[in-house]
Amino acid sequence: MATITPSIRIRRTPFSPGVEKAGVKSYTVYNHTLLATEFDNYVEDYHHLKRDVQIWDVACEKQVRIQGFDAEKLMKLLSPRDLTKLHQDQCFYIPMIDKNGGMLNDPVAIKIGINEYWVSIADSDYLLYILGVADALKLNVTIDEPDISPLAVQGPKSEDLMARVFGNEVRSIKFFRYKKLLFEGRKMIVARSGYSKQSGFEIYVDGFEYGMPLWDKLMNAGRDLNVRAGCPNLIERIESGLLSYGNDVTREHTPFEAGLSKYVDSKEEFLGKLNLQKRSFNKIIRPIEIDGEIPSCDRHWPVFLNGKRTGIITSAVYSPDFNCNVAIGMVDIEKAPAGTQIEVETQNGFHKAQVNSQFWN
Amino acid sequence: MATITPSIRIRRTPFSPGVEKAGVKSYTVYNHTLLATEFDNYVEDYHHLKRDVQIWDVACEKQVRIQGFDAEKLMKLLSPRDLTKLHQDQCFYIPMIDKNGGMLNDPVAIKIGINEYWVSIADSDYLLYILGVADALKLNVTIDEPDISPLAVQGPKSEDLMARVFGNEVRSIKFFRYKKLLFEGRKMIVARSGYSKQSGFEIYVDGFEYGMPLWDKLMNAGRDLNVRAGCPNLIERIESGLLSYGNDVTREHTPFEAGLSKYVDSKEEFLGKLNLQKRSFNKIIRPIEIDGEIPSCDRHWPVFLNGKRTGIITSAVYSPDFNCNVAIGMVDIEKAPAGTQIEVETQNGFHKAQVNSQFWN
Repeated sequence: MATITPSIRIRRTPFSPGVEKAGVKSYTVYNHTLLATEFDNYVEDYHHLKRDVQIWDVACEKQVRIQGFDAEKLMKLLSPRDLTKLHQDQCFYIPMIDKNGGMLNDPVAIKIGINEYWVSIADSDYLLYILGVADALKLNVTIDEPDISPLAVQGPKSEDLMARVFGNEVRSIKFFRYKKLLFEGRKMIVARSGYSKQSGFEIYVDGFEYGMPLWDKLMNAGRDLNVRAGCPNLIERIESGLLSYGNDVTREHTPFEAGLSKYVDSKEEFLGKLNLQKRSFNKIIRPIEIDGEIPSCDRHWPVFLNGKRTGIITSAVYSPDFNCNVAIGMVDIEKAPAGTQIEVETQNGFHKAQVNSQFWN
Repeated sequence: MATITPSIRIRRTPFSPGVEKAGVKSYTVYNHTLLATEFDNYVEDYHHLKRDVQIWDVACEKQVRIQGFDAEKLMKLLSPRDLTKLHQDQCFYIPMIDKNGGMLNDPVAIKIGINEYWVSIADSDYLLYILGVADALKLNVTIDEPDISPLAVQGPKSEDLMARVFGNEVRSIKFFRYKKLLFEGRKMIVARSGYSKQSGFEIYVDGFEYGMPLWDKLMNAGRDLNVRAGCPNLIERIESGLLSYGNDVTREHTPFEAGLSKYVDSKEEFLGKLNLQKRSFNKIIRPIEIDGEIPSCDRHWPVFLNGKRTGIITSAVYSPDFNCNVAIGMVDIEKAPAGTQIEVETQNGFHKAQVNSQFWN
């Protein structure tokens, strides 16, 4: 397997020394930033995540900060989701689209105040789209990437660990809500969120220099909880049906095809409104179970129904807990409902497969 | 060294099978796409590039295609460079900026026709900025990423190799000009350009399925020329002073700081015009020679003049041909002119260094 070449363009994070010390084996690149993918190996990392607690360097979840008089106006222009319902302590998952309804990113947005939003982006430079719209319309906003580096604490023992460092107040944070809590005298946003279904928190670490002190404090406080460095786990995220922008969804797809129609409810005149309503769609994201031994899913695998193309697989891996290959695919909504027997073509040949009704976790 | 994890989000290219067969050792990720960085090793790759001819998979140089009635209007709104001088067989290097004059990308643009431009982008999703502007202004354009994959042929023997595959017409292509030439019955853009100063061409391979046939044909035709798979070489590009967006230049910098003021000559009302004219600047890109043994430059190295911070190093490596460490840095324009003795702090400590007057190649 080829190695990854260090460079400034592939950014290190405040937590990189901790990740390296923990013996990271593999990386991916996400928002021009290093993101660990494996420490021990996928399977051991997975069992540990589901059993104990892990600290994840997810500084690659870059924040786009929108500040100024027109911040709310701009957000409403961009968002298909009704932002009037977004409370000031709340995290909102929003499928962001272009004028044709194609998905450009699927960030989590938070409202810091009436004139300030942070958009925690998936892997595309969505900042540039926001900036293009604001520049073209000469809006009164500043758009930048602040020195904020999210650190995730994930796993069933995450609440206990977090309480030891941030106090018992973390226990009262509800799902996809946040509080501003103190670390070394600095107020930081602590949200109950994260890219796993094993429960957990994300700390929006405010200032590069606080990164390693917080990392070390969590590691030291969690020794008896068997805390470890971890990262988003491929097996767990597919079992949980957590989409990955760029893998499972791209600008080719609308939020409807991504199965995100419930997040399209804005009553405002957002940019893609008209075209999104007009676009028909005949495929949708589904959980799929694949038979046999499968290779690494580094390219689209075509899906066949009675010999005819009916979609693609976009993510797949073997799941030890469910003893099968779990996968995410986009297939014909009518021809391939739950229960349909299909065939999948990987780089190693054809495999029998089945469309499932729900994800595994 | 950690490995890179395969996934669909980090795209393979039409030439990936060729790159893998040639024994790629390391990758970087560029525009969400695999880009080889090393085959034999940096030094051997470098000597070979300067002596013979290499085939480079630079499909990561994604094209943003702008088509439609408002294509020219949009390009003029975006470009600080005077596009009235852009001929239809010409390649134009353009530092693209936002409304504040900050650089968003430094692509090469070509004009395909009155209503069509292709922008060959560096490593940022500049498509999203163009799209944001077009969507906000409701311009009559289509903006997409066509199925075009650049393949570079670089090195002193590149013209001979290209003539064997595309005919002697390639010899008459001037620097940064292009012709449409046939490969297997398909017309493709062939430009005299590329990310090295060893002379060469870039073929805008039109259609994924033509990728490996062209790769194989070039490899077979060039055996006696000692052709090899290669990639942009870190040593050669620093010697040549070829900037890397994301390494040497970011949105923090104006084209003036990047040393690109000669590409700011548009008479049109482009978006950043007003602010760019108002922005003062006191630092600029310079070639810098660093003493001693240096580590991998994967983070900014501060530069000191008489103990005071006066800039940063953004790219650096040892050059066998010049028997010194060649580097690119951004330093105070007045305090650190050519000849100035400075100090550079790497992760291994302090090094003496000197600002040079020109790059090495």
